[in-house]
Amino acid sequence: MDDFMQAAVEQARRSLDEGGVPIGSVLVHRGEIIGQGHNRRQQRRSAILHGEMDALENAGRLPASVYRDSTLYTTLSPCSMCSGAILLYGIPRVIVGENQTFMGEEALLRARGVEVEVLDDPVCRELMSRFIAAHPEVWHEDIGEP
Amino acid sequence: MDDFMQAAVEQARRSLDEGGVPIGSVLVHRGEIIGQGHNRRQQRRSAILHGEMDALENAGRLPASVYRDSTLYTTLSPCSMCSGAILLYGIPRVIVGENQTFMGEEALLRARGVEVEVLDDPVCRELMSRFIAAHPEVWHEDIGEP
Repeated sequence: MDDFMQAAVEQARRSLDEGGVPIGSVLVHRGEIIGQGHNRRQQRRSAILHGEMDALENAGRLPASVYRDSTLYTTLSPCSMCSGAILLYGIPRVIVGENQTFMGEEALLRARGVEVEVLDDPVCRELMSRFIAAHPEVWHEDIGEP
Repeated sequence: MDDFMQAAVEQARRSLDEGGVPIGSVLVHRGEIIGQGHNRRQQRRSAILHGEMDALENAGRLPASVYRDSTLYTTLSPCSMCSGAILLYGIPRVIVGENQTFMGEEALLRARGVEVEVLDDPVCRELMSRFIAAHPEVWHEDIGEP
């Protein structure tokens, strides 16, 4: 696991320590982390702060040229909302920790020209599978499932 | 224009009064507004609070059953991010004020089974066309364009 995915995992762990969904993300521009975040459903009672959205928000307002030269790292396959944000800003590359506990919109991203690399990382998988087993109701709410 | 789109327009006007992008949105469940919001790029220096996202955030955490029985009203055709949020939560119906100043992901929404109705409302159109003419750089940033 490279340093950037490690930073995303640290965000996921921070969320877990806060009692939240363990998904973390970092936005990297030319080898430097310019935004990082984690899921805040539990912590801020937020319906929109998934890990990727939180990383984008924490990166602040950026010109299109920065997004278009950046890579987004996320511990879990990005859902429709986060994939939509990736498409909105034209982020060309996404590194995904794992997609076994949840398969996001990887096909849509690829169809729109985004490079998606899936690491199938056991640490990311275990963080999510334990959380889902312990708090299925929070997880289902987070992905809009009954 | 019905009362719900009128409420979305009032949100757009509030944003304009605050110096922001004039896009507003309301989430309606069984004939009642349960969330409303507007674009907050300028006001909160936010990269993710488009009007629809702000309405969803202000509606708070909701079970899937509520989203799946709701309609989202938005003064402007929803971008990739906001359309992704609509898909994530399974909102079955979207009423769009106009799509002349910006065409969002209406085709994707329809392909996924979302009912999309476009009003082509002149008030919504004029709010956006005036803002885009006056602040093209803010608008381009908001939709990830150079």
